Amino acid sequence: MSDRFRIVFAVYPGVTQLDFTGPHEVLCRLPGAQCIVASTLGGNITTDGGLGFGGILRIEEVGDCALLCVPGGPGTVEAMGDAVFLRQLRRLAGSARYVTSVCTGSLLLGAAGLLQGRRAACHWAWRDALKEFGAQPDPARVVRDGNVVTGGGVTAGIDMALTVVAEVAGEDYARQVQLAIEYAPQPPFDAGRPERAGAAVLAAVSARFDRLRPAREAAIRAAATRLRELQ
Amino acid sequence: MSDRFRIVFAVYPGVTQLDFTGPHEVLCRLPGAQCIVASTLGGNITTDGGLGFGGILRIEEVGDCALLCVPGGPGTVEAMGDAVFLRQLRRLAGSARYVTSVCTGSLLLGAAGLLQGRRAACHWAWRDALKEFGAQPDPARVVRDGNVVTGGGVTAGIDMALTVVAEVAGEDYARQVQLAIEYAPQPPFDAGRPERAGAAVLAAVSARFDRLRPAREAAIRAAATRLRELQ
Repeated sequence: MSDRFRIVFAVYPGVTQLDFTGPHEVLCRLPGAQCIVASTLGGNITTDGGLGFGGILRIEEVGDCALLCVPGGPGTVEAMGDAVFLRQLRRLAGSARYVTSVCTGSLLLGAAGLLQGRRAACHWAWRDALKEFGAQPDPARVVRDGNVVTGGGVTAGIDMALTVVAEVAGEDYARQVQLAIEYAPQPPFDAGRPERAGAAVLAAVSARFDRLRPAREAAIRAAATRLRELQ
Repeated sequence: MSDRFRIVFAVYPGVTQLDFTGPHEVLCRLPGAQCIVASTLGGNITTDGGLGFGGILRIEEVGDCALLCVPGGPGTVEAMGDAVFLRQLRRLAGSARYVTSVCTGSLLLGAAGLLQGRRAACHWAWRDALKEFGAQPDPARVVRDGNVVTGGGVTAGIDMALTVVAEVAGEDYARQVQLAIEYAPQPPFDAGRPERAGAAVLAAVSARFDRLRPAREAAIRAAATRLRELQ
């Protein structure tokens, strides 16, 4: 394990930062890990929550990687229409040992044509849209199908990354990482899944997502059409 | 809740990014939230895991805030010797409704003289050092003492932040945030606490931390001496 293990987080404006900062905190602890954050333009990115990242590479200039991680977020609407970005996802995925996503990042894997015939996870509110890309939505928090490992919404990326660490470096090493980041979660409520949150809480969150739905669904349909034309 | 609720994340080079990106993802969803990341010099920061942040403000130029959050990380060794940074923590804490920390960020609160006589959480490996600053180490994942809310190691910041959201905006609103970020954690192992990780895993992680121990303990002793001289 002294070899470099290059990890590329493929980001874009309006990404949800915990989608990739969670896995970054876990995966940067892999022996030999070299973590790179890359976007179409490089430079700086602002997330949907207003957090600023710097030192981002241009994704076209990034060499092959062992692991590709694609996070989600409201910015997927624009990213699904970014032909350069999707082409680079296909290129990097082509030689990666692991192709991963978190949250609505799986919609970007789908738009890049990387999920056809595969089971995949996604944020609960957008999971069904995976079908547009020929994928089979799976409600599990971490879904593995071949070398594609996808996580559910936002915080699922931490569980996804620990699952990958266990496979790359062994279960005991993954336990070491888990202990180092004191990952013994104690959510103050049992509200992290739609079937547990209660009707009023679910309705309030769904109403907020529904305001994003027309734009996102149009973007998904357009991306699915372009993908079919490409094939 | 239409008023602005300004939140300042006080960072420094070598911060552990998930210590503050976790709470940032939760707290930026508070109604009226205005999240600011600030450091002594402003500009860019690189974390201990190599992630780059940009657009950081100079902490001296940041106005009062409703909530101060101080994350931890290996960079606390240098940050404990940064008199400007500690003075600004005292200033911001002086008018904040909530003074919070994650992981070894509580050592910085301690070095700033903000934990005297208070119970506080910290990363398990460094918790006892809180005594140097007159604080009482508490092994709970989230500890509240007056308006000071501290979290344990790294990932505890998510639980800490949801606890604060429940208090600021109500439990049902906190449940909405938890559902939006699908926070229904499923760690692949039960290894997130020293008493659960097993002897071999604990020994391996402790050995890595022990390499940092002399420098950190010297920094803590020096900071505690300066604090006593100040008072």
